[in-house]
Amino acid sequence: MGKGRLEAFSDGVLAIIITIMVLELKVPHGADWAVLVAQWPAFLSYVLSFVYVGIYWNNHHHFLQAAQKVNGASLWANLHLLFWLSLMPVTTGWMGENQFASLPVAVYGAVLLMCGLAWQPFQRSLIVANGGKASLLAQAVGADWKGWFAVAMYVSGIALAFVAPWVSCLFYATVAAIWFIPDRRIESRIEQ
Amino acid sequence: MGKGRLEAFSDGVLAIIITIMVLELKVPHGADWAVLVAQWPAFLSYVLSFVYVGIYWNNHHHFLQAAQKVNGASLWANLHLLFWLSLMPVTTGWMGENQFASLPVAVYGAVLLMCGLAWQPFQRSLIVANGGKASLLAQAVGADWKGWFAVAMYVSGIALAFVAPWVSCLFYATVAAIWFIPDRRIESRIEQ
Amino acid sequence: MGKGRLEAFSDGVLAIIITIMVLELKVPHGADWAVLVAQWPAFLSYVLSFVYVGIYWNNHHHFLQAAQKVNGASLWANLHLLFWLSLMPVTTGWMGENQFASLPVAVYGAVLLMCGLAWQPFQRSLIVANGGKASLLAQAVGADWKGWFAVAMYVSGIALAFVAPWVSCLFYATVAAIWFIPDRRIESRIEQ
Amino acid sequence: MGKGRLEAFSDGVLAIIITIMVLELKVPHGADWAVLVAQWPAFLSYVLSFVYVGIYWNNHHHFLQAAQKVNGASLWANLHLLFWLSLMPVTTGWMGENQFASLPVAVYGAVLLMCGLAWQPFQRSLIVANGGKASLLAQAVGADWKGWFAVAMYVSGIALAFVAPWVSCLFYATVAAIWFIPDRRIESRIEQ
Repeated sequence: MGKGRLEAFSDGVLAIIITIMVLELKVPHGADWAVLVAQWPAFLSYVLSFVYVGIYWNNHHHFLQAAQKVNGASLWANLHLLFWLSLMPVTTGWMGENQFASLPVAVYGAVLLMCGLAWQPFQRSLIVANGGKASLLAQAVGADWKGWFAVAMYVSGIALAFVAPWVSCLFYATVAAIWFIPDRRIESRIEQ
Repeated sequence: MGKGRLEAFSDGVLAIIITIMVLELKVPHGADWAVLVAQWPAFLSYVLSFVYVGIYWNNHHHFLQAAQKVNGASLWANLHLLFWLSLMPVTTGWMGENQFASLPVAVYGAVLLMCGLAWQPFQRSLIVANGGKASLLAQAVGADWKGWFAVAMYVSGIALAFVAPWVSCLFYATVAAIWFIPDRRIESRIEQ
Repeated sequence: MGKGRLEAFSDGVLAIIITIMVLELKVPHGADWAVLVAQWPAFLSYVLSFVYVGIYWNNHHHFLQAAQKVNGASLWANLHLLFWLSLMPVTTGWMGENQFASLPVAVYGAVLLMCGLAWQPFQRSLIVANGGKASLLAQAVGADWKGWFAVAMYVSGIALAFVAPWVSCLFYATVAAIWFIPDRRIESRIEQ
Repeated sequence: MGKGRLEAFSDGVLAIIITIMVLELKVPHGADWAVLVAQWPAFLSYVLSFVYVGIYWNNHHHFLQAAQKVNGASLWANLHLLFWLSLMPVTTGWMGENQFASLPVAVYGAVLLMCGLAWQPFQRSLIVANGGKASLLAQAVGADWKGWFAVAMYVSGIALAFVAPWVSCLFYATVAAIWFIPDRRIESRIEQ
């Protein structure tokens, strides 16, 4: 099964997710500085989510570039990943509207966690469809410590949200910073 | 007539439908657990609809993969199918907002029914465009009992909604579960 | 200049226009029949607009299939066409919300008129880019009476809206019915 | 790394930005002329933004046509550009809703400025990926006076917004008019 339409559909959904998030930045009523300044939590959470969706798109792109085929399981694993990503706009809006209150920050972290976990079966299904453990893809992924480190950070962030939500946001931002650079492992393996 | 642009347009519309459904999950006012828990009917109906649109995308993908050509009738049969699918976000939102009340559950079932019925002429037009009854596609589809079973379940669900709407939802979820696995018939025929 | 990206971008915009129109079908408050029945003007105007955008996509598809190249003017003529089409969701919503009152029906007709007029320079730019008057495309288009008949119907519809808005809607629906079948001229010319 | 998926994703995001801007044109309550006329600032700012996003799409299209490859930096430079463009719908809506008041006009100009500045690293990354200073792309871009003139106009527009916001809008419209024609330099270089 070719990967073309899976890429096209995912590009579509990711493009829409990243763009409708901006609809949660409501057009403010009034035209003065106070009104504008009051938008900063919404803006900040928009920036964080934009970077996260950008990272997922980037890694999705890199990962599928190294793959030749997809199977039936990949289609559903991909939809599962997109499902959790599709919850980012609403949780972003909720977190921004409540100035990073505890529960919204925890729920935001939970969505990030589910996205991170949903990446694993997607990754696995592509490895299976492209030759298994001995394949280029499997070697490029390796032990995937970055993926599991992110999961640990999300779990800590969720727990900390009820004590110090700003620390949770710092944790989420740290993971984003680590993932910012697309996976060199895959690029270097492809070149070999 | 090539199938490329029909696929691209359908991917676009399906990607948007699956994503704007999340806009019906309104950002809740307040940041406590009560507010979050109150979202569960909206969330549940979102999950169900996400799975349904995912199934349609999956089958659309599989079906067009087996087809080589489309004709003028396919274009309109496809738009007709997309029309009914485009009503999913609004009926999903209506059902979720009213905690699965009778009428919204019946209307939701009616939209599922129309999607199921709209699939038939789309399927038929592709079979006609690709060699008719003797073609690979026609043989792969066969008697299509799954399609007609779904129609029967939707009709029962609509009728039952006025008595026990939860049973209707169970019916809709059952159909989704049956359709979850993409059509093996087509895959196995292609391999042959 | 290749036509691939112009097609992709237009498919994207048309897919979004056709889908966000459904956002104007607001989730109704309440779950009884009265609430549902009150939606019929919104639903009817949605159906009409869905058919219109479907027609434009269909003809866009057919027309670009017969073209080999696009030029700089085509890019802007295409964006100009998309601009007027992008106004369909808001005018559809306005017409539906006001139960086909005079002014909204006239404005809706004006948007249809502008779409119809915007088609002409788009068509012309493609003919110029693909060999001019002697080209396959130019011959396929011919005198384009259907295009000018539509313009006449829209103008009449706009004027009549202030007397009998329902007759205007009938006019708009008639044009849609005439355009429903994609342009045979182009298909038959391609086959030759 | 191929440019196909970067083009596809950007087309998707730009198509969505240009289309969801129309959602800021709220369906007005009431059906008389007063209500319609009150929409003109919203409509005017929609037209200006539509032209701007159209220009960015056009130049993106032209620029990538001349490029053969993209690198990891291009992916993020492109996302950075799309980020600032994604703020156009909300600032357009804010400017229109407040009848071109000082602060919204200044903020709108600031978003245009950031888009203009974000274009530079995107352009640079593509030049680096396609052969550096001696490449076709670098020569086609040349000194890029148009880009820096636009930046100067935006800065002046932002400053002037607090004195005479209409003059700022005139400045923004002037830049749009200058950029309206896609970059001949690239087209002529490609032909050579």
